[in-house]
Amino acid sequence: MFKNGISIIGAGNVAYHIAKAINNAGYNIIQIISRTRNTAEELANEINAEGIDDFQKIDLSVDLIIIAVHDDDIINVISKINFGNSLLVHTAGSVDMNIFEPYIINYGVFYPVQTFSKAREIDFSDIPICIEANNNSNQNLLLQFAEKICKNVSIINSNQRKKIHLAAVFANNFVNHMYHISSNLLSDEGISYDILKPLIKETAMKVMDNTPNEMQTGPALRNDNIIIKKHLEMLNNYKELQKIYRFVSENIKEINK
Amino acid sequence: MFKNGISIIGAGNVAYHIAKAINNAGYNIIQIISRTRNTAEELANEINAEGIDDFQKIDLSVDLIIIAVHDDDIINVISKINFGNSLLVHTAGSVDMNIFEPYIINYGVFYPVQTFSKAREIDFSDIPICIEANNNSNQNLLLQFAEKICKNVSIINSNQRKKIHLAAVFANNFVNHMYHISSNLLSDEGISYDILKPLIKETAMKVMDNTPNEMQTGPALRNDNIIIKKHLEMLNNYKELQKIYRFVSENIKEINK
Repeated sequence: MFKNGISIIGAGNVAYHIAKAINNAGYNIIQIISRTRNTAEELANEINAEGIDDFQKIDLSVDLIIIAVHDDDIINVISKINFGNSLLVHTAGSVDMNIFEPYIINYGVFYPVQTFSKAREIDFSDIPICIEANNNSNQNLLLQFAEKICKNVSIINSNQRKKIHLAAVFANNFVNHMYHISSNLLSDEGISYDILKPLIKETAMKVMDNTPNEMQTGPALRNDNIIIKKHLEMLNNYKELQKIYRFVSENIKEINK
Repeated sequence: MFKNGISIIGAGNVAYHIAKAINNAGYNIIQIISRTRNTAEELANEINAEGIDDFQKIDLSVDLIIIAVHDDDIINVISKINFGNSLLVHTAGSVDMNIFEPYIINYGVFYPVQTFSKAREIDFSDIPICIEANNNSNQNLLLQFAEKICKNVSIINSNQRKKIHLAAVFANNFVNHMYHISSNLLSDEGISYDILKPLIKETAMKVMDNTPNEMQTGPALRNDNIIIKKHLEMLNNYKELQKIYRFVSENIKEINK
């Protein structure tokens, strides 16, 4: 399938990792299209594709075009070019599939539930992929395609996908911000952040085989108001962190009542 | 050193993992002392020690007594028994070392920066240990002892240790609560929490080699107020989560301004 190849619009973190994974799965990538020629060519060179910045030169004979640009830019891409019968997917967690409807005939979504950075190689086969399409035939195409790349593919509608994206903001962005806060608290004392790394790793590994609910510990769970009060005092110079500490602790108490 | 053996007061998660690690390092554990005989004996049997519930029968001829009980119970243990010249340490992140001063002659702290549960085996040698003692001679004893068990031992005073504990609340308890929230959001939609596991693992692994600051992504960092507004609307039935979402997002924006 997809014998005419696949093209990718975008050359950022998501585009980079999808391109690598598709290429490794044996598919032909024809074009990498990006507003900046250099970044398009840089990625294209790695996977033996053509890198272009002229959106009028997009090759429409390919079997699939993957749009991996910022959420806000998707509309610009699909509204300004006539894609004819080409099958298009976007890769965004929070963008409804029906964004395509006024412009595109064959479309869907290919959403990898993962955080990407170019600096880190990642095993794409472990990443859960959420698939959605405008009809059964496109859905089957995308499903077969995704299953060539990953072990964990689900059909997920736009509303469910948005919930997954919201959950991912908590599990990824907000978690990372908690790491950031803890790192700042330590650097104030001249203590290396390294001291928390085994704890961070174990906290994540614990919820691989257990629910987060079962794994909770700490002052808020124990309703240890003496420690909570001491911690709030230690945060006296950080009013924003006090608020976060207070609300998260209250929510832990509330949920575990 | 410590040829007369070591005893442990407490038989919970921390006591369990410390006892195992000490035993594996070749030290003799003499007694496990706990208010409930069964739990004392259960742990004692695993490491060929004596399990007792009578605090009057504590063997004071050992070289070190490790108090691994709940923070609030430490004072009860040390104030009610005459420990003579015995060297005592507690294992609590948030309890000042000077809690010992009125009652004990030789004392210190042995604080492992990790989260423990009996269900999960853990490589103790990777755990950072914070050591503090009431004099140089005790500090050297504890340092040598800790270095037999772990690769990463630091001398940390009580104020620094409390800061580490506070940072650990963010990096462990609050992170785990973010996992919990995300899991609840998914279960509302009938979606398995498994879909977030690779993301959770990668989010943690990313900060092993990079700072959390460098690794941040997401709507708050991008100042994407359209998505933030949509997310807050999706949380309309969860006022507490709305508050957490709002304050954490504001703090991400603020820190990255």
